[in-house]
Amino acid sequence: MSSAPAPKQDRSRVTRQRILEAAVESLATRGWDASTVSVIAADAEASRGALQHHFPTREDLIIAALDYMFEKRAAQMAALTIPDLTGPDRVAMVVRTVVDLYIGSLFRASLQVWNAASADPALRDRILPLEHKFGSGVHDLTVRLLGVDDSDPQVRSLIRATLDLARGLALADVLTDDSRRRRRVVDAWAAQLAVALAARSS
Amino acid sequence: MSSAPAPKQDRSRVTRQRILEAAVESLATRGWDASTVSVIAADAEASRGALQHHFPTREDLIIAALDYMFEKRAAQMAALTIPDLTGPDRVAMVVRTVVDLYIGSLFRASLQVWNAASADPALRDRILPLEHKFGSGVHDLTVRLLGVDDSDPQVRSLIRATLDLARGLALADVLTDDSRRRRRVVDAWAAQLAVALAARSS
Repeated sequence: MSSAPAPKQDRSRVTRQRILEAAVESLATRGWDASTVSVIAADAEASRGALQHHFPTREDLIIAALDYMFEKRAAQMAALTIPDLTGPDRVAMVVRTVVDLYIGSLFRASLQVWNAASADPALRDRILPLEHKFGSGVHDLTVRLLGVDDSDPQVRSLIRATLDLARGLALADVLTDDSRRRRRVVDAWAAQLAVALAARSS
Repeated sequence: MSSAPAPKQDRSRVTRQRILEAAVESLATRGWDASTVSVIAADAEASRGALQHHFPTREDLIIAALDYMFEKRAAQMAALTIPDLTGPDRVAMVVRTVVDLYIGSLFRASLQVWNAASADPALRDRILPLEHKFGSGVHDLTVRLLGVDDSDPQVRSLIRATLDLARGLALADVLTDDSRRRRRVVDAWAAQLAVALAARSS
């Protein structure tokens, strides 16, 4: 609550974060083409010079923005707990929580970048390690929250299927609000996953 | 096998189809921005004039191209049969077949158009009815091939989940060849779907 000016290094870090968040939001709402460096600088109330000091190219900015948001999401995931539930109720809560991680601005922004990367091998090579890191993080989180043993190949495949389902549901939400239909699909899936996991652990 | 020239109307229809197929292929491989009317005309070995005679705007061309490919896919789907299999083997074969409908050029092209539509409400309004038609067609096909009763809400939700999974798997295949991992995921889910469907019908 001090009114003393923040040290220069802190101000720079805060500016950097504001730029990265503006980049993700712009990609998600305006799309790839319209998310120019100038537009993102204006959204973040940063000068073009400040932006280019942190990120020499537009591609550097976009990669850094996804990485920052993934890391932020990973920190949220590490803190997640599902208390006091067991059996099918726990599975339902975990699947809903994991699906929710995929819905929203970060997915929309990522989709814009994937799409650009599908016609741009150099961008693709920079995106794939990020995707892999995020995918592994969500997988490990799901295993931990479910409390299952994913050295069982069938369990591992079913968890992967759940994350692929989440990605498909996120895609269905890009053009319309799909939340009502999604809830029914997620609950039907979770009920079936609970049956499968109970059979594997017994 | 006649060498007589085709009637003018037939030639026009053939040119139209060649243009539509070139448009889908260009979207899938070059992306949205690079798929200009000139590039697609060159791919289809059609004049720009011929192309603009059929499709006044680039958007008309792209909508018509997706519609044409969906219709062609629908005709393939109507002809599909899964002979001589019952129980879990039949479910596995149906799920594999349905997932395969989502993998490939048509999905990649659609993804480019969805992405553009997510920042363009007018394009979005033209895309949604096409998406709905394709989704219903695949749903009905899946019900028919599985031989299940989808007036049961749980069965309906599980079939929808299967199609959402297929969409997520198609997305995972855009940046890398995901076919080996996909086969394991599909088979794990199909085994679980078979258990669920057997329980609902008994």
